[in-house]
Amino acid sequence: MKMNAEIIAVGSELLLGQITNTNARYISSQLAELGINVYYHTVVGDNAERLNQAIKLAESRAELIVFSGGLGPTKDDLTKETIAKHLGKDLVMDNTALVSIEAFFQRVNRTMTENNKKQALVLDGCQVLPNNHGMAPGMFYSHGKHVYILLPGPPKEMEPMFQIEAKPVLAKWLNQEEIILSHVLRFYGIGEAELETQIMDLLEAQTNPTIAPLASDGEVTLRITAKTSTEAEALRLIQETEQILLSRVGNHLYGYNDDSLASSATKRLIELGLTISAAESLTAGLFQSELAAIPGVSETLVGGMVTYTADSKVNQLGIERSLIDQFGVVSAECATAMAKRVKMMFESDIGVGLTGAAGPSSHDNQAAGTVWIAIVLPNDEVYTHLLHLSDMRNTNRLRAVKKTLHYLIQLLSQKSVKI
Amino acid sequence: MKMNAEIIAVGSELLLGQITNTNARYISSQLAELGINVYYHTVVGDNAERLNQAIKLAESRAELIVFSGGLGPTKDDLTKETIAKHLGKDLVMDNTALVSIEAFFQRVNRTMTENNKKQALVLDGCQVLPNNHGMAPGMFYSHGKHVYILLPGPPKEMEPMFQIEAKPVLAKWLNQEEIILSHVLRFYGIGEAELETQIMDLLEAQTNPTIAPLASDGEVTLRITAKTSTEAEALRLIQETEQILLSRVGNHLYGYNDDSLASSATKRLIELGLTISAAESLTAGLFQSELAAIPGVSETLVGGMVTYTADSKVNQLGIERSLIDQFGVVSAECATAMAKRVKMMFESDIGVGLTGAAGPSSHDNQAAGTVWIAIVLPNDEVYTHLLHLSDMRNTNRLRAVKKTLHYLIQLLSQKSVKI
Repeated sequence: MKMNAEIIAVGSELLLGQITNTNARYISSQLAELGINVYYHTVVGDNAERLNQAIKLAESRAELIVFSGGLGPTKDDLTKETIAKHLGKDLVMDNTALVSIEAFFQRVNRTMTENNKKQALVLDGCQVLPNNHGMAPGMFYSHGKHVYILLPGPPKEMEPMFQIEAKPVLAKWLNQEEIILSHVLRFYGIGEAELETQIMDLLEAQTNPTIAPLASDGEVTLRITAKTSTEAEALRLIQETEQILLSRVGNHLYGYNDDSLASSATKRLIELGLTISAAESLTAGLFQSELAAIPGVSETLVGGMVTYTADSKVNQLGIERSLIDQFGVVSAECATAMAKRVKMMFESDIGVGLTGAAGPSSHDNQAAGTVWIAIVLPNDEVYTHLLHLSDMRNTNRLRAVKKTLHYLIQLLSQKSVKI
Repeated sequence: MKMNAEIIAVGSELLLGQITNTNARYISSQLAELGINVYYHTVVGDNAERLNQAIKLAESRAELIVFSGGLGPTKDDLTKETIAKHLGKDLVMDNTALVSIEAFFQRVNRTMTENNKKQALVLDGCQVLPNNHGMAPGMFYSHGKHVYILLPGPPKEMEPMFQIEAKPVLAKWLNQEEIILSHVLRFYGIGEAELETQIMDLLEAQTNPTIAPLASDGEVTLRITAKTSTEAEALRLIQETEQILLSRVGNHLYGYNDDSLASSATKRLIELGLTISAAESLTAGLFQSELAAIPGVSETLVGGMVTYTADSKVNQLGIERSLIDQFGVVSAECATAMAKRVKMMFESDIGVGLTGAAGPSSHDNQAAGTVWIAIVLPNDEVYTHLLHLSDMRNTNRLRAVKKTLHYLIQLLSQKSVKI
C-alpha cells in the first residue's frame, strides 16, 4: 500500500524558537526508508484549537499523521486529549505504562506526583508503543482512512521508540512486500562537495540502489538504499554499489551504519589487543570521554591525564620545563612529550598527546585553532599532525578530538605501520 | 501594530530528512524578540502547487509570512516565482543584486553560468535585502493585509540577512512602541512537573509578565517576559515576578539566561579565587572537558586524571589497593580517595572524584547507574553524593557531570560551608 505522510510537532517552545524541530528530520528520514512520501511538516503550539485545525488539515492531505510532543504530565501537554476529542474516542489508563512510570520514579528515587499518572492515558483501542527511555508511552492508532502515530517530544525518547517500536508496526501495517535495505558508508577527512564531485556520474545515474550523500560536523555519509523482492538481491545490489564507491573514495572511509569515529577506533584497538592512554590540554578530557562513551572500552582505555596548565604538564606529567621554554606548549615537541610521558606513566601500548590554542584568543603566541596531535605507537614510533582550525573554541576542541580518532584509525589500519 | 506570523521553509531535502529546519527556530526566536507571535511553522517541498496551497493557508491565519529557501539558481528553486504568480506580480531584474552576484563569481574565481542570473530577479515593488554571505538577495514585500519576507535557505546566509537587513525593516514597519524584555531563570535538581506544581497558581494567573517553563536534559528553565512602554517598567515587572518565583523554588536555581551549569560553576570558582582538579572514572574526562568549554577556565582548572581501570586508580592516582578491596571502586570511600589524591597531586584548592557503573551492565557488583560523587573543599572537608540513574551509559555519564557541577555550585554558595 502506498501512503503520504504529514509530521506534526506540537510545542510552543518550538514556535518561540527555544528548541529546534529535529524530530521532523528524524521521522522524515525513517519514513523515506519505508518508501513513504512526506509532503508537509507542521509545527503548532500547545493550543487545543490550533492543534485541532492542524489535525483536520493534515487529514485532508495525508493518510499517515505522525505527531511528536505534548504527551507529558503538565497541563500544556494536550496532543492525545485533542486527538481523542477530535475522533470522538476515550482516553483509558494503560496499566503497563503506569507500572513503568512508577518504576521510573522509584529507580531515580523521586516522588511521583499525581499529574504524572496522566502520562499513562492512551487512546482507547490503540496499540501502545512502550517508552524505554522515558515515561510517556507512544501510540499507533488506525481509524477510518487514517493512521495516527503519537510519539513523545524528547528526541532521546522519540528516536528509539520510532526505530524499535513504531517502524515495525508501520511496516507490517503497510503489508510491505518490497524489501528495502539501507547501508551507510561513513567518511572523514573529505568535504561533501569534493566527495560529490568524485562520484557525480554515479549520483546522476542512480536509480536502484539510490545513493544519498549527507554532511554533518566534518563527516560525510553516503546512504545506499536498495528496493527489491528479496533480501539477498538487495544485499547484492548494495554490495555492488559499495564496491564502486569505495574504489573512488574508499581511502576516506572510516566505518559503516551506526559506527562513530570513537566506536571504530575502539573496535580497532580491541581487535589488535592494544591499550591506550592520553594526555590532553585544550581538549581537557574530551578525547578520553569520547572513547568512554563506547561500551566495552575498558578493554583498551587505561586512563590518562588532563594537563590544562603549563605547570601541570611539568609537575604532574613530568615534561621538561626546558622543552616548554624552547618550543612552547603549542608545538609538535610538547604534544610528542605529552604522548610519550602518558604512555610511560599509564603503561599503555599507545599514547596520545593533544595541545593547542582552543580559542577564541591566541595562546602562547599561537593563533586560535592551532592544534598539535601526537600519537606514539607500541614500537615508540611517533606520528604528529598539525591542524589549523577556526577561532571557535568548542568546535575546535571537538574537531581536534575527531581528527585524532581518525588519525588513530588510519595508523592502526595501515599495513606499513608496524605495531 | 499587532501581528501574527507563519514561517514557511521550502525544500524537498527537509521533507526527506536530509537536513534539519534550523531556520524556523532562528526566525522564531528573532520574531519573539519583536513581540510577534508565531502560530505555525510549515515545511513544504520544491513543488509549486503544494507551495501555493501553503501560501494561501498561511494568508488565512497570519499577517506576516516568512519564507526561507528556494531562491537559488536551479529549476527546483521556485519560491519567488510561485509567490509572484499567486499575487499577480512580475519578477524584475535587480541590478545591484546582479552586480553583486557577478562580483561573487569573480571573487571565488569561478565562471558564472547563465542560470545564476535568475537569482537577481526580485518581486516588482519589493524592498531588496542584500545577501552579504551568498548570492540570492532576500525580499521584504508588503501587499494588501500581508507582509511577505523571502530569505535564502542556507543558515549562514539567512541568519545575518534576517538580523541585519530584515529585522530593522520589520521593526520600522511595525512602528513598535512596546518594549519586550525576557529573563530566563535556570534550575537543576527539580523535575518539570514538580516545579510546575509548586508555581501552578502563578502559571494559571499569569498575564504580564508571562512565565514559560521549559525542560531539557535534566534542567528546567522559566522564561519571564514583560511587555510595557518603558524598559524600567519591564525590568520592575520582571524583578517582581522573579522574587516571587525564587521564594518558591529558589533553592534549585543555578543561573540566568545563557548560563550553563559549567559556566556558573566556573564563574563561582573564579570569584572565590579557587583552583580545581578532578579524578574521573565513569565520566572519563567529561567533567573537566565541560569546564574547559568555558573561555577563561584556565584561571581555575589545573587539570586532573582519568583513572578508568582499578589499576590506574592504584598505580597512577595512588589509592590504597586495600581500600578498593574493602569497599569496591563504586563507593563513597573510593570517590573520596580519588578527590583527595587528585587535589594533593595537582595542588589545587578543590578536588573532585567521580566513580560509578556507567552501564548498560553492572560494574563491580553495583547496578548500572550507581554513581558516587566526592568533593573535597580547601579546608579538606569532604562532601559525597550518591546517584541512582538509569542503565543508559551516556545519559548517566552526562547526568553525573551535571549533578557534580550543580553540587559544586551549591557547596560554593552556602554560607555555612567554610572555604
